[in-house]
Amino acid sequence: MTASAHDSPVRQAALEAREASRTLATLSTDAKNALLLDLARAVRSNQTPILEANRADVASASNLTEAKLKRLRLTEASLEQLAAGLEQIAALPDPVGEVTDERTVPSGLRVVRARIPLGVIAMIYEARPGVTLDAFALAFKSGNAVLLKGGRESARANSAMASLARGLLRDHRLPERALTDLSHLSREDVRELLTLSDLIDLVIPRGGEELIRAVVEHSRIPTIQHFKGVCHAYVHAPADEAQAVNICVTAKAGAPATCNALECVLVDARLAPSFVPALVRAMQGAGVEVRAEARAAALARGAGLAVVDAAPDDFGREFLDTIVAIKVVDGLDEAIAHVHRFGSNHTEAILTRDEAAAEQFVRRVHASCVVVNASTRFNDGFQLGLGAEIGISTSRLHAYGPMGLEELTTRRFIVRGAGQTR
Amino acid sequence: MTASAHDSPVRQAALEAREASRTLATLSTDAKNALLLDLARAVRSNQTPILEANRADVASASNLTEAKLKRLRLTEASLEQLAAGLEQIAALPDPVGEVTDERTVPSGLRVVRARIPLGVIAMIYEARPGVTLDAFALAFKSGNAVLLKGGRESARANSAMASLARGLLRDHRLPERALTDLSHLSREDVRELLTLSDLIDLVIPRGGEELIRAVVEHSRIPTIQHFKGVCHAYVHAPADEAQAVNICVTAKAGAPATCNALECVLVDARLAPSFVPALVRAMQGAGVEVRAEARAAALARGAGLAVVDAAPDDFGREFLDTIVAIKVVDGLDEAIAHVHRFGSNHTEAILTRDEAAAEQFVRRVHASCVVVNASTRFNDGFQLGLGAEIGISTSRLHAYGPMGLEELTTRRFIVRGAGQTR
Repeated sequence: MTASAHDSPVRQAALEAREASRTLATLSTDAKNALLLDLARAVRSNQTPILEANRADVASASNLTEAKLKRLRLTEASLEQLAAGLEQIAALPDPVGEVTDERTVPSGLRVVRARIPLGVIAMIYEARPGVTLDAFALAFKSGNAVLLKGGRESARANSAMASLARGLLRDHRLPERALTDLSHLSREDVRELLTLSDLIDLVIPRGGEELIRAVVEHSRIPTIQHFKGVCHAYVHAPADEAQAVNICVTAKAGAPATCNALECVLVDARLAPSFVPALVRAMQGAGVEVRAEARAAALARGAGLAVVDAAPDDFGREFLDTIVAIKVVDGLDEAIAHVHRFGSNHTEAILTRDEAAAEQFVRRVHASCVVVNASTRFNDGFQLGLGAEIGISTSRLHAYGPMGLEELTTRRFIVRGAGQTR
Repeated sequence: MTASAHDSPVRQAALEAREASRTLATLSTDAKNALLLDLARAVRSNQTPILEANRADVASASNLTEAKLKRLRLTEASLEQLAAGLEQIAALPDPVGEVTDERTVPSGLRVVRARIPLGVIAMIYEARPGVTLDAFALAFKSGNAVLLKGGRESARANSAMASLARGLLRDHRLPERALTDLSHLSREDVRELLTLSDLIDLVIPRGGEELIRAVVEHSRIPTIQHFKGVCHAYVHAPADEAQAVNICVTAKAGAPATCNALECVLVDARLAPSFVPALVRAMQGAGVEVRAEARAAALARGAGLAVVDAAPDDFGREFLDTIVAIKVVDGLDEAIAHVHRFGSNHTEAILTRDEAAAEQFVRRVHASCVVVNASTRFNDGFQLGLGAEIGISTSRLHAYGPMGLEELTTRRFIVRGAGQTR
């Protein structure tokens, strides 16, 4: 698996990352943290060139939507946040080498199971330049090399930040190929990248559903999938209705386009007559459009509130906007059946004072995160105590839910004997 | 995700398995163990019909090699072993519900991370009828439904055993679709099965490299890969040479065609003059053909031993036979470089009295299991204390090394609050 003149540029890059990963796997925690802290300093002292590169990206990205432009744009504040994030990653415990099991088996062998890096990770993301250093830092701290294919619209800023990191890796006498910026890769080259299962251990697509589907479709490498978050809150009687309204409204209006935002409220018929009007009033007060199924719509209209009739495809839909669907259900079983049918394995909440019902919901509902009496928006690596997050997986293999440093490692066995045979 | 008249038979089977998996995920440990113990009894009391079905399979499998016929054939002894295996699985701890992390985060939320089943697992395997109940039992104990596509040559015995299990599931009022026998599926149907990523959570191919490559090539579902085991033993000076010879010979001759069998011995040049002749003599005494690289061949011939000259492709090769390759290397670095180049991420061993060298080898070598002073053949779920094994993964995602019950589960978050929002 050494490079040869016949290797394509993409394969060559992956080979060099694989080579670098062998050294990265054996670095001390101190060496990794020193690099990350220097990188935080460098981001602060190089704001001007990074922002200039970003301005040039923005200037030539003429045909982007306003939402996409907003994600593309860097500011002094966002760079400071990035630098602070690097310091936080340096402060997190190093997962590499952690022993998770240790036992002496009947043959007398001492068996240890310990964490090692995955190896080489390819991140494929849209025009969000901050991801470049964020993803590098998480991969580096967990001992992995990264291939970063960011959106071409942010190629200049990606390249400026990647150069900064590469320069510091050189200064620290660490393998430069810990990070490879592939923003310029063509679509065909990305397809080739996705076939290199002998050199790349994991692909993480981060972006819209279309990007993720395209990556999953073409990848021959294990891929962490996170298609979308269709999160429900089921309000079960008896509930603290004021608290439930507050949770639902903030879970939608606070950040309507995030994957952990609330998309649909299921209301137990027993409390619907009071709860539906209160919820609709509060949602509309927060600027949220309410799309109500027939029974919920009737209750709202009975209270003099105008609501939109929900279309069948408003259920199971990630609105990515200030829109919420509401439906009345006849108790726990119907709520769970609705979630089974329309949920996306992301986040599901129950809001109730009935502890037995809450435990049934937790036991029977399928999602990476099941929440009792709190907002769906807590399904987030920082909020759940992982310290950081590289994405949220909605598929069950390897990682389910937010992925922190630990999820960028795997475990292997180390066996020590005294001549045992079998 | 309910069945409709438009669903193909394969999709229909997967839908029913998905439906069953929801109930299986919530079964008590006692209910699962009671079924497994009854199944063990049923295997013992139904030996005659199972063996008859197997004899009919063997009779019509005219064009199989002797090795394949041997794997196809069931005996009273192998059925007794199967029954005892079911009892062992019943005795293992239930991984479902196990809490692996528990903390209160700054927002006051109580965050629990707990094991849940993967959901629906498809096993694709060759004509080894015992796998049918073995795989069912492991999947069932870990709360998963299984779709079993065994080799068509063993269809009658697979079906007899599957019926036994299904009958007991009915008697216990458990979902029958916990197990679906798909031995009769055509190649096209298997391809369709491998696209059902909305219904199947994991595919485990078990068999030869060709089978695994075909499954990986076509699967759109996460697939646990285990291509082959090219296991090395590096004998580093100083070593207990007699012990090292014994380990190497038994690791090859004991079970030459298993994936954890030894394929190549790397001998430190410092002890090669005494070790190579001793090793060659012992290997040949155990009926193993030795293929030696030039330096090793010269040492063997100098001691009057005839060896075969190794061809370049004898390195990195899984012989699956009583053949071993031998090479002299100039110390640890060359041994590690050889393993990096030719290893298969399965099992790598170092045999030495030099503890510092052993630790370097452990740190730098990549394999699901790194062994010091013992046989490579210990990379096995039972031997490493997992209690059972459904296969050995050589890819790093989700599980690396032997997969027991725990590896058939994933973890999700359960968050309990008191009205928290963000």
